Amino acid sequence: MIPDERADIGIGMLGYAFMGKAHANAFRKLAYIAWPPPLEPHLVAVAGRDERRVTEAAERYGFERAFTRWEELVDSSEIELFDNVGPNNLHAAPTIAAAEAGKHVICEKPLGRDADESFEIWQRVAAAGVTHMCAFNYRFVPAIALTRQMIAGGEIGAVRHFRAVYLQDWGADPNLDTWRFRADEAGSGALGDLGSHVIDLAHALVGEIGAVSAAVRAFMPGRSVDDAVSATLEFTNGAIGTVEASRLAVGHRNALRFEINGADGSVAFDLERLNELTVSRGDGRTTTILVTEPGHPYVDLWWPPGHVIGWEHTFVHELDHLLRSIASSTSVGPIGATLEDGYRAAEVCEALAKSSKRGRREAVVYRTDAALTHAR
Amino acid sequence: MIPDERADIGIGMLGYAFMGKAHANAFRKLAYIAWPPPLEPHLVAVAGRDERRVTEAAERYGFERAFTRWEELVDSSEIELFDNVGPNNLHAAPTIAAAEAGKHVICEKPLGRDADESFEIWQRVAAAGVTHMCAFNYRFVPAIALTRQMIAGGEIGAVRHFRAVYLQDWGADPNLDTWRFRADEAGSGALGDLGSHVIDLAHALVGEIGAVSAAVRAFMPGRSVDDAVSATLEFTNGAIGTVEASRLAVGHRNALRFEINGADGSVAFDLERLNELTVSRGDGRTTTILVTEPGHPYVDLWWPPGHVIGWEHTFVHELDHLLRSIASSTSVGPIGATLEDGYRAAEVCEALAKSSKRGRREAVVYRTDAALTHAR
Amino acid sequence: MIPDERADIGIGMLGYAFMGKAHANAFRKLAYIAWPPPLEPHLVAVAGRDERRVTEAAERYGFERAFTRWEELVDSSEIELFDNVGPNNLHAAPTIAAAEAGKHVICEKPLGRDADESFEIWQRVAAAGVTHMCAFNYRFVPAIALTRQMIAGGEIGAVRHFRAVYLQDWGADPNLDTWRFRADEAGSGALGDLGSHVIDLAHALVGEIGAVSAAVRAFMPGRSVDDAVSATLEFTNGAIGTVEASRLAVGHRNALRFEINGADGSVAFDLERLNELTVSRGDGRTTTILVTEPGHPYVDLWWPPGHVIGWEHTFVHELDHLLRSIASSTSVGPIGATLEDGYRAAEVCEALAKSSKRGRREAVVYRTDAALTHAR
Amino acid sequence: MIPDERADIGIGMLGYAFMGKAHANAFRKLAYIAWPPPLEPHLVAVAGRDERRVTEAAERYGFERAFTRWEELVDSSEIELFDNVGPNNLHAAPTIAAAEAGKHVICEKPLGRDADESFEIWQRVAAAGVTHMCAFNYRFVPAIALTRQMIAGGEIGAVRHFRAVYLQDWGADPNLDTWRFRADEAGSGALGDLGSHVIDLAHALVGEIGAVSAAVRAFMPGRSVDDAVSATLEFTNGAIGTVEASRLAVGHRNALRFEINGADGSVAFDLERLNELTVSRGDGRTTTILVTEPGHPYVDLWWPPGHVIGWEHTFVHELDHLLRSIASSTSVGPIGATLEDGYRAAEVCEALAKSSKRGRREAVVYRTDAALTHAR
Repeated sequence: MIPDERADIGIGMLGYAFMGKAHANAFRKLAYIAWPPPLEPHLVAVAGRDERRVTEAAERYGFERAFTRWEELVDSSEIELFDNVGPNNLHAAPTIAAAEAGKHVICEKPLGRDADESFEIWQRVAAAGVTHMCAFNYRFVPAIALTRQMIAGGEIGAVRHFRAVYLQDWGADPNLDTWRFRADEAGSGALGDLGSHVIDLAHALVGEIGAVSAAVRAFMPGRSVDDAVSATLEFTNGAIGTVEASRLAVGHRNALRFEINGADGSVAFDLERLNELTVSRGDGRTTTILVTEPGHPYVDLWWPPGHVIGWEHTFVHELDHLLRSIASSTSVGPIGATLEDGYRAAEVCEALAKSSKRGRREAVVYRTDAALTHAR
Repeated sequence: MIPDERADIGIGMLGYAFMGKAHANAFRKLAYIAWPPPLEPHLVAVAGRDERRVTEAAERYGFERAFTRWEELVDSSEIELFDNVGPNNLHAAPTIAAAEAGKHVICEKPLGRDADESFEIWQRVAAAGVTHMCAFNYRFVPAIALTRQMIAGGEIGAVRHFRAVYLQDWGADPNLDTWRFRADEAGSGALGDLGSHVIDLAHALVGEIGAVSAAVRAFMPGRSVDDAVSATLEFTNGAIGTVEASRLAVGHRNALRFEINGADGSVAFDLERLNELTVSRGDGRTTTILVTEPGHPYVDLWWPPGHVIGWEHTFVHELDHLLRSIASSTSVGPIGATLEDGYRAAEVCEALAKSSKRGRREAVVYRTDAALTHAR
Repeated sequence: MIPDERADIGIGMLGYAFMGKAHANAFRKLAYIAWPPPLEPHLVAVAGRDERRVTEAAERYGFERAFTRWEELVDSSEIELFDNVGPNNLHAAPTIAAAEAGKHVICEKPLGRDADESFEIWQRVAAAGVTHMCAFNYRFVPAIALTRQMIAGGEIGAVRHFRAVYLQDWGADPNLDTWRFRADEAGSGALGDLGSHVIDLAHALVGEIGAVSAAVRAFMPGRSVDDAVSATLEFTNGAIGTVEASRLAVGHRNALRFEINGADGSVAFDLERLNELTVSRGDGRTTTILVTEPGHPYVDLWWPPGHVIGWEHTFVHELDHLLRSIASSTSVGPIGATLEDGYRAAEVCEALAKSSKRGRREAVVYRTDAALTHAR
Repeated sequence: MIPDERADIGIGMLGYAFMGKAHANAFRKLAYIAWPPPLEPHLVAVAGRDERRVTEAAERYGFERAFTRWEELVDSSEIELFDNVGPNNLHAAPTIAAAEAGKHVICEKPLGRDADESFEIWQRVAAAGVTHMCAFNYRFVPAIALTRQMIAGGEIGAVRHFRAVYLQDWGADPNLDTWRFRADEAGSGALGDLGSHVIDLAHALVGEIGAVSAAVRAFMPGRSVDDAVSATLEFTNGAIGTVEASRLAVGHRNALRFEINGADGSVAFDLERLNELTVSRGDGRTTTILVTEPGHPYVDLWWPPGHVIGWEHTFVHELDHLLRSIASSTSVGPIGATLEDGYRAAEVCEALAKSSKRGRREAVVYRTDAALTHAR
């Protein structure tokens, strides 16, 4: 074996299902794609309650050990980065414990089940002084990263309108059951699961959301969470917009779409065509950029122009960014989402729910210190 | 000349600009396209304040006479149908006077400058017992008429979501001046001009709008009307949705788009590709129908399949429908928009403005009788 | 009636079916759309064999008289422009007779049933000294006219590749019968009916076709003409390309599409989205122009930007161009297709058929004088 | 470490550039994605002439050893599968030597530099009795595999038309130099590099190509290979079609597109939107299938519906198929391309070149035995 002198980093993962597969795949790929990797990921252990399944997951993805209790991850001194891809009700305690044990943390979205829980996670982890990330992976789609660059560079001028949807339709199956339909485990439904993604993008691309008006609905019987939300957004910079999230938008498998209109131009994106970005100016023309050119964000990792990438690649970019941040002892923001960003999305989601209940526009008040004690 | 025994109908038109051209063109075309026409349109007179221009318009479009006072149209016994394509502040008095003189009336949208004025136009015209129409021409796009048929036929099941935009960008020119920017003449801005179209479609396709939450904005200096609105809709049948209208959506010349998600399927439409309708089911497939097939609404008037029509054809369908309604002494509804529909759209637009001002969800209350006196 | 001092032009039309409707509609529209019209079209007479139907057509479209013999059109001194929209086997004799009677002529495509007949029509009409046009209406699609301007202006550089299809599927119906399936009446099948359109565009946009290789096929039993052709083109300027025409391309109602690649850029067009033109440069971007902007060809006749036109409008542009050419005593070329262009397309179609039969590349030899006598 | 009892297979790779990265990535991914893998790939060694670069490639992709002579791969008893991703002039000798040393082989396309060389590779490898594959990876795009299933299942009826392009534009750079521009190393230009892909798909999806007519061109100075080809295809089953390949199609980075029209329906594909397949019937509708549904080919390996994959995934499917074929001692055909398929594509490419040169339709004659001796 060729000797390898690069520093590595021990990874512990809580969970091994859909998101676990996406993260494990990304760790394995970045070792040779983001060459040379900032830190070589060393897959130490994966934890899950089902011994047979967690053991198979370890074997499949190359983790050295399988644990049935997440506390074992926290206790392992080899683990330096704790990756929480478990269900929402397992976000708070393990993430906080890992951080307080000195491990860097990444936690899947939504951060907590509500704003309070999300705030506490952020505050406790931040106090621990570790690097932290909330896994809003869509920030790492090259076309979306390019959108951010364009807006930051003034290419479309002051933003006036934002509209976004995140539409799926798997919730339309009346026979389906999952922890995602139960309020105590998931916190909310489409709101936190899908809405939080587009809320985070609104914030990352356009700016702070100041007030919201919403209609949140549960259409399907037997579920204690919402199925859909339609909302109006008001940004503090003066822009206005709409956002929708639904698990019942029949015909859409995974349609995250947004459009942003500025004083000088517009950009539009559709996740089902994630290699493309559509740009308009005030001249009756619409330009589709195939975001695979040299210089486009993250693209240099991959293939020649026109050789398109897929959904999974967002995780490679995200985790590579996290490892670089750890290696350089810097925050993952503003390019990546910190746990503060995770909390802020949760605050907006809660304002959406409140607005729908109270029938009024809700100002979104973001807490900024640790004064609040979690009191559920 | 081959003798012609068909009944005809005398047309008088107030206005001759953009909409005047569209209506005059439609009257001339339907005489041979909707063959045999229900009533042969006889272009009696056109009225406008500028004598030179109204005289040229008469010559151009084939009106027998040109008037500089709209009252002359009302006084003409040859005129049986009064077509009001004038600016918004000339909708109420002439339309009411024409109806009270026993003429059938069609009035461009928005009906009045606010809900009160719109209500009065409707009430007074309805009391006169004539046939009346509000010119929401997009109901007569074949793809939109097909949408209505599909929804009415249960093809997409109970509607859950509606989202629509009507985006233009001509308002982004800071040097432009027009009556459309002045509140006393136009009533409102994007709200009444563009928003009313999608509000009417929401109502015609999905059902009654029960409540709204909105952010209405004036971004451009020097205009006494709004430039844009973003809003959340709640329908009385349980569906929710969003609607946006803007004159500042840079990159969009005339983008009226909507999508409707039902329990069993979805439909989507884009005016810039008005011959197409996109339909989805819960199977990961999206089907684009080229709405030029035999049996598709209005299509039999025109050309073989695949030979697409344009924006102007909506007016031919609309006015043909109006003449057939007059010939058979029936209402233009529910396929066409009556003045009641024009009023209802105005009531929703006013609720949007109120919601934005008051920061709360506004229930939309539709007046149904003539109790109210117009008190401006 | 307002007095009208403009010169008019008497029109006589042979045929009243599909193309007759399209041409009659265009003559009626251009009188007020292309304002002021170069010459006011005066619909003198229409001719057809079925007395009842031709009489109804005259009444419908506003022709003063209906004839059952085309010779009556030729004999009428009021008719100054002879519009031949009859079947292919009625193109030669009436068009020649009309021209020799001093009338300007426009003839539908394909000009003749073969190259010899097409050549004779051209030669005889040209010798008569009248203005003449072959009705290749797609030259008058604004997006295609814009393509020509762009190429002529050097915007895409030297052309290297041309690829075009004209695909329809109505021929897949085995029960259909029409003169279009009979060689003695139609001359050829998809080749002359559809192929001639894209051949003409190849010539008008890219340049002279020097040689062709083709596979021509008749798939359906009982028809004496071809159903489809696939071919390779070699232009005299060095460009190469492909062309296909089919009546059996299931799923395509009317798909005329082309793409042209030059040294500096590319353009692409699709008739089913005829208001759009797609342009590419060597930068991984693709721009869709909505061809409804001020300054775009023919667009000033119509509506504001974004208000799209349809298939029928090509005929308005074409006939307006013809009337302007007549009024100014100039050729309709190079913007419109002359009968020489009609002949040249026929020569290419015949080369395609020969190549398929002989299994070799056929050089296309264009005759340029009147030496040949038609000897069928 | 969890013990692993699965059989593994030793891999040796010749080359490490663009295709080397794609193959190495695929081998690493299939070990956990195609779970459990048919054989666990063990990356034994990679060979290349530049010692520093091949050593880095070995380190990066995890090969145990780096060789500077390909013969070392052939000599290594640990290597059971020889993966040739080297330039075209290194396809023949190493592939034959590896097979004759008892190793299974996969070779990138085009197989040889001409039909003779391709034939010899196939014959010599086949005689060695090992499993062999020509790396036409596009057969393993899920949408293309679905196309094959649909055609085989009779869903579009007898095929009548095939049209395909493979367009790139990197060749338009006059300053570029690469072995791909030199006839002695590459054999041909766009013809073998791009054309062979669509020729293989034509064969795999529609059937045997019986005759071709072509125009092959070299537009750019200083290159001893062609830049582009336009051609007409005639299939032995009666279908006809066109094919084009170019490195000068400005605006296209990697546009492999095809459409197939059958008697009962059509399918269309575009590599830049590789998760989509468009299907048409004779009803004026066009359906886009997002090929990420359960049951779609290869899709079960990956993510939930709507979570799209990219270009690189084709190699995972291809190499997984190869390993399964090796594990079960079966041919990779007809799903994968054998070296016979590689040879057949070369025979068609050569017929295209001959047709262009000779100016005639060339029948394609496929050799089927080992009688020919390679005599260059």
